[in-house]
Amino acid sequence: MQKVLIANRGEIAVRIIRACHEQNLQTVAIYSTVDADAMHVGMADQSICIGPANPQDSYLNQESIVQAALMSGADAIHPGYGFLSENADFAQLCEENGLTFIGPRAETISLLGDKARAREVMQDAEVPVIPGSREGFTELDMAISQAKDIGYPVMLKAAAGGGGKGMRMIHDEQQLLHEFPLAKGEAQQAFGNPEMYMEKFIVRPRHIEVQVLADSYGNAVSLGERDCSLQQYHQKVMEEAPSAIDQETRYEMLSTARKAATALKFLGAGTIEFLYAGPGQFYFMEMNTRIQVEHPITEAITGTDLVVAQLNIAAGQKLAMTQDDITLNGHALECRITATMPGKVSKLHLPGGNGIRVDTALYNGYQVPANYDALLAKIITYGATRDIAIKKMQVAIEETVIEGVGTNLDFLYQLLNNPDFLANNFDIEFIERLTNGGNTDD
Amino acid sequence: MQKVLIANRGEIAVRIIRACHEQNLQTVAIYSTVDADAMHVGMADQSICIGPANPQDSYLNQESIVQAALMSGADAIHPGYGFLSENADFAQLCEENGLTFIGPRAETISLLGDKARAREVMQDAEVPVIPGSREGFTELDMAISQAKDIGYPVMLKAAAGGGGKGMRMIHDEQQLLHEFPLAKGEAQQAFGNPEMYMEKFIVRPRHIEVQVLADSYGNAVSLGERDCSLQQYHQKVMEEAPSAIDQETRYEMLSTARKAATALKFLGAGTIEFLYAGPGQFYFMEMNTRIQVEHPITEAITGTDLVVAQLNIAAGQKLAMTQDDITLNGHALECRITATMPGKVSKLHLPGGNGIRVDTALYNGYQVPANYDALLAKIITYGATRDIAIKKMQVAIEETVIEGVGTNLDFLYQLLNNPDFLANNFDIEFIERLTNGGNTDD
Repeated sequence: MQKVLIANRGEIAVRIIRACHEQNLQTVAIYSTVDADAMHVGMADQSICIGPANPQDSYLNQESIVQAALMSGADAIHPGYGFLSENADFAQLCEENGLTFIGPRAETISLLGDKARAREVMQDAEVPVIPGSREGFTELDMAISQAKDIGYPVMLKAAAGGGGKGMRMIHDEQQLLHEFPLAKGEAQQAFGNPEMYMEKFIVRPRHIEVQVLADSYGNAVSLGERDCSLQQYHQKVMEEAPSAIDQETRYEMLSTARKAATALKFLGAGTIEFLYAGPGQFYFMEMNTRIQVEHPITEAITGTDLVVAQLNIAAGQKLAMTQDDITLNGHALECRITATMPGKVSKLHLPGGNGIRVDTALYNGYQVPANYDALLAKIITYGATRDIAIKKMQVAIEETVIEGVGTNLDFLYQLLNNPDFLANNFDIEFIERLTNGGNTDD
Repeated sequence: MQKVLIANRGEIAVRIIRACHEQNLQTVAIYSTVDADAMHVGMADQSICIGPANPQDSYLNQESIVQAALMSGADAIHPGYGFLSENADFAQLCEENGLTFIGPRAETISLLGDKARAREVMQDAEVPVIPGSREGFTELDMAISQAKDIGYPVMLKAAAGGGGKGMRMIHDEQQLLHEFPLAKGEAQQAFGNPEMYMEKFIVRPRHIEVQVLADSYGNAVSLGERDCSLQQYHQKVMEEAPSAIDQETRYEMLSTARKAATALKFLGAGTIEFLYAGPGQFYFMEMNTRIQVEHPITEAITGTDLVVAQLNIAAGQKLAMTQDDITLNGHALECRITATMPGKVSKLHLPGGNGIRVDTALYNGYQVPANYDALLAKIITYGATRDIAIKKMQVAIEETVIEGVGTNLDFLYQLLNNPDFLANNFDIEFIERLTNGGNTDD
């Protein structure tokens, strides 16, 4: 591997270019016409315009990107996150053209992209999934025994349909006796099918995800977990590592993730996302087969450079560490500064100094295009304790100045000063409750 | 302690303001008329102009600064480095005005500022100083026995004078027999006094310094050492931590420094500078009683925030750690980007990302004044090994763009690619040899 084309833009393209240069790899940037002045274009050794602003015609244009790689003499493609990073066809196309796709094999991407198959594969690998009935049923007796097996509260659903019809949250058997006939009737009426389905209702879970790395020699390691519960409109807003889970559950979660990566013959950097309900209770949601936006907090607490690891694995190297080499030190926090309104950056001051990392493609005078992801910058703080990392972030966000573009800086600052956040008392619906009236307790 | 006046400017003022805010301390910036648009002015909670550009009338104007502190209700003054940071009179003046001077006691500053007294005090504390004859002598027998005690090579000097008259570097006894009468004659002729003096000649030493922290309860710790041998015109250019010395010498040096700090009843953050001649051979040069420019590399390898530690010690807190808590992890490098020509910053791109720290007061459009220190920015890289830290620095320096101001970026880049630097083969005269003809081996 000698020359890497980065099939992405923005901060992650900048991140990957730096890692490539640190590994003495040549870099090729691609860009759309609207991105001619983007930071990643100037930083790469070479850059190629691959189409107009519309992503379909540029950053998602598989043929153009592969042509750009072949034309420039690149022998590998790093897809970053988003865009084509979890597209099995693209991974396949790279392979067919003799280009190393920096990520897992096409069939792994394909398998994990199919939620139902992924769930099955994970169950086979002894990864806990959200407990649910394997088949539909219509008998009350069956409903009672299923609910007992799964454990209350459960969510009763119409097997045939969605949209809330026939759906009931059931807290105990008495409620089930009462609601089951009603729900069944509703399902019959709505879908012409009375069959019901049941799964465990996870009360105010946290989103906890485990970072894994796996090489082509069958070695896999878990690099701690991240709490990504703070989400708005299903987008992560602020992430931290480690999470507040107990040591025993952490150990269980990390070894589960590692076993899953091994069973899947996974290759590269991946993330297994869990819903966490309480000590010892966590359930597989999905596996991402690419680098994540929030990877820097794992780098901070493990000292492992995940993008460099991706490059080394793709180059056929063995993992540089075993599970025993990995220790989690200190605490890291990431804030995603996003654009709420595109525009031209007219004034810019980003924080720096001890324990502060900034990943961004922003610069003074930069015109933020409206065509792509709203992420402007990631600020990562690191300190010996959670309190120190938070205090550093409060100061860092307060110091940040971005003018000419609308941003979520005020919201981040409020969140960083929220008593429940400070007390580590939140779940995946926290921000939604917060912004829908301000009552954090429903 | 609630409100701190920062009696400094530039990157160190920015550094201190951030640390204060992280500790919930209010900040007061001072500035000269030419610094009205300086970064530290905008970042502090309050700012006071204390005089015209000339340092004597502003940043060195003790009365004005104390008045600004009293006027603004500050109860402490952080002097940073340079300016009044090692001025015992200023520390005394602060004390007299009921202001906490964030640094050692006035008498400690005074004592360590007097080279001869400092040498005596260190000898009493069993810190090795450069071996030399205690008194002058004129007899050859005396010269021979002194040289034996000290160990060759030695430097023979006229006790009465300087300027190279009567000075000889002596490699062995045979040479001494031949040169002593000649040198004595020269001294007699030049100064009317034949008395000679002798001290050990340190061949191509390294500059190795130890960071210490000490509280007001008699506790002191050493936080590893830094190699600052890469100097030009007696200014440090690039520093790294840890140094290349062996583990045994490191242990000896660190415990020596700690004992010295304890013996001196030192208070706050200080640095003991040694000349290092080889395994087990190191000699006290001087002790700095303030935060150093290169403190971030120690922060990187120890995880200790030295400015926060200064604040806590000044507030009367006990050291948060004992010597056993301090471990040195990874490798850190600092490059000092300095202005070779003042001007207005017309384009600016500073590096970022994993393992990169930037401390600076530079911004796009900033007019670098000609009145002060030439330091524009410090780039600190951190990685698991020296090779990784260096590679990161090469990429970071290559990425850096500063237009409108002359800088030493090209020189730093050359230095970072010099084979002897890469092989960790250098001493305090390395850059001088390098720039005087390019032959690094004399």
